[in-house]
Amino acid sequence: MNLTLIALEEPTDRFTCLYTNNAFPGHPVKIGRELLSQPLLKGLLINNRISNVECPGGYEVSQRLRGLCESLLPGDGVVFPFSTGIIGWQLPEAEIAQALPALVTQRGLVKALPLARSIMTTDSFPKARSVEVGKGRITGIAKGAGMIEPHLATMLVFVMTDVDVEKVILEECWKEACERSFNCISIDSDQSTSDSAFLFSTARHPFPGRETFQNALNRLARELAEDIVRNGEGTGHVLEVTVSGAASFREARDAGKAIINSPLTKSAVFGNDPNVGRLIQALGDWAGCNGTVLDRDRIIIALGDTILYRNGQFQLDEKKEEHLHQYLKERALPLPSPGFPAHEKNVKILLSLGRGEEEARVWGSDLSCEYVVINAEYRS
Amino acid sequence: MNLTLIALEEPTDRFTCLYTNNAFPGHPVKIGRELLSQPLLKGLLINNRISNVECPGGYEVSQRLRGLCESLLPGDGVVFPFSTGIIGWQLPEAEIAQALPALVTQRGLVKALPLARSIMTTDSFPKARSVEVGKGRITGIAKGAGMIEPHLATMLVFVMTDVDVEKVILEECWKEACERSFNCISIDSDQSTSDSAFLFSTARHPFPGRETFQNALNRLARELAEDIVRNGEGTGHVLEVTVSGAASFREARDAGKAIINSPLTKSAVFGNDPNVGRLIQALGDWAGCNGTVLDRDRIIIALGDTILYRNGQFQLDEKKEEHLHQYLKERALPLPSPGFPAHEKNVKILLSLGRGEEEARVWGSDLSCEYVVINAEYRS
Repeated sequence: MNLTLIALEEPTDRFTCLYTNNAFPGHPVKIGRELLSQPLLKGLLINNRISNVECPGGYEVSQRLRGLCESLLPGDGVVFPFSTGIIGWQLPEAEIAQALPALVTQRGLVKALPLARSIMTTDSFPKARSVEVGKGRITGIAKGAGMIEPHLATMLVFVMTDVDVEKVILEECWKEACERSFNCISIDSDQSTSDSAFLFSTARHPFPGRETFQNALNRLARELAEDIVRNGEGTGHVLEVTVSGAASFREARDAGKAIINSPLTKSAVFGNDPNVGRLIQALGDWAGCNGTVLDRDRIIIALGDTILYRNGQFQLDEKKEEHLHQYLKERALPLPSPGFPAHEKNVKILLSLGRGEEEARVWGSDLSCEYVVINAEYRS
Repeated sequence: MNLTLIALEEPTDRFTCLYTNNAFPGHPVKIGRELLSQPLLKGLLINNRISNVECPGGYEVSQRLRGLCESLLPGDGVVFPFSTGIIGWQLPEAEIAQALPALVTQRGLVKALPLARSIMTTDSFPKARSVEVGKGRITGIAKGAGMIEPHLATMLVFVMTDVDVEKVILEECWKEACERSFNCISIDSDQSTSDSAFLFSTARHPFPGRETFQNALNRLARELAEDIVRNGEGTGHVLEVTVSGAASFREARDAGKAIINSPLTKSAVFGNDPNVGRLIQALGDWAGCNGTVLDRDRIIIALGDTILYRNGQFQLDEKKEEHLHQYLKERALPLPSPGFPAHEKNVKILLSLGRGEEEARVWGSDLSCEYVVINAEYRS
């Protein structure tokens, strides 16, 4: 187990966090929700391997450990706890308590990449991204490879900025950025009990203006979200579905999610098989069960730059199928993952519903034997 | 490709069919919906391999073929067409038209098992069941192994009875039977574009009373539904989740479906890993996203005869885990499937929500490498 401490040089009153929507949240999630109303933040304490969910006494253990960490760190403010890993097991409280003093003593300037590495579980590469904004930066790290279809936030994401952002603006911008990034990905349609996405500002540089900050934050969040999918358990292709012509953002996102969560579509992509019947099946299943009325004559579907469906019927021939087979092959990622991804080429699906003006983009992974093997053997 | 004809000795006015809810239904589904208002039925024409969905001219091809079949068969009445297999390909009209006369000439008394065998696609064994009712029988055949999470009906199911049932009662009883059988199974959460469930009566024996008929029909439908799951593509275990204490049947079914559709839960069962954290995750994801308020202190979860969760926390120790590991191992089915299933032992999960008096039972399959391999290579 790795124990990671992000300690601030000075406490800040500018922080926010979005947590999982799962009805069985982990104990650190419950504690974090209570701490959000505290005035000052001085640190984040993170462990991997065990997520501290629904186990007897788990709430008290997390409370005692963050209390100990707060008393060891100088200054006012609270320490937020985060745990990720196996559900149902207990945290080794004595070992963590023993390790904390050294961790506090050794704190200092840390780099994003080693931080990102230390919070990994089944991840095969550390996920860290940074963007410039005004006179400062926004830097974020993330972990997560399975049990990923976040609602409101994703596995563990920690984003820091040195530009000065008021707390209320920080909260609003973070919600907006998460909604179009982490809430638009799905590796396996399973929502974790520990999803947490934390953002804080150390306020060293002036605020660059809301639009500039929002755009930079959106870009960083989207890059981290894509990294999470790219590193999904057993991910052999990243699917990127852009749904346009929808009546609402939510409708567009739901239609896209129906495609990236269809096991048959995912298996076909894994096999580099342009099995477009399964796209239609997934879309039709979603619309039929939701009562969404589709005008089939207005629907357009494309894979890469090739139109597959238009005017209410498939537009296919053998040459196109061979071209699409090559397109999928070129976008395959090596399995098992050798670490950092070999490339960032996504399998792009465009879907126009012809129902309105709204649009959404979602990212998902294919379904490979690797995924099954990893998740059939995770604990053994 | 197999072409199958079920020809009635005499036309009947007692027939009903439930079709897929998918918004891109196959052409035979569209035609069948139109034919339901016709007074007399004289036959069913079924092909496997190609499902005739969304391909240019597919509607007209199916209409011409059923018209030809009607003119070849003696007597009044219509012939319903059914197609299953690959989506997007065109039916070989000339070949089918050429084969029809011989098929009509050779018609006669057929047995359920060869019929069930002739409509198979990726199925590894024919699914046929029969129950006694009053002085007659109900006999049914089914096919389907992938793209299975029916809404309103399942892949292809044909059920015949020789007891006399009025059309309106036939319709009501069939809806009720399908709701608690085919609508309660999911192999991969993908709903087919061709799902059809047909029931007709040849009215040779007196009606045995509604309750007797409904009970027999329910039993037959449930047995066929379980057979479909047991023969799911790459199914290594059948999960049977009974949800009680729900506020409604629908709520109970949805909670059960959340568990049997969780890829992480399915992968764990495949690996004989009693990873109960994933059950909690799946249930919590469903409740959290639906706004269903769960009182964690009233929830009880059991696997086999072992209670896993009660009084708001896990009830686990190493001995229990080893016992559950053995329980799962004993219920594994050999892969690849050797044909007829080695046994009919399901992995039984009991879940009590403590919210009401309603109950539902659902059946699903685990997630194996076999499933991925079959669906990555289906067309090649």
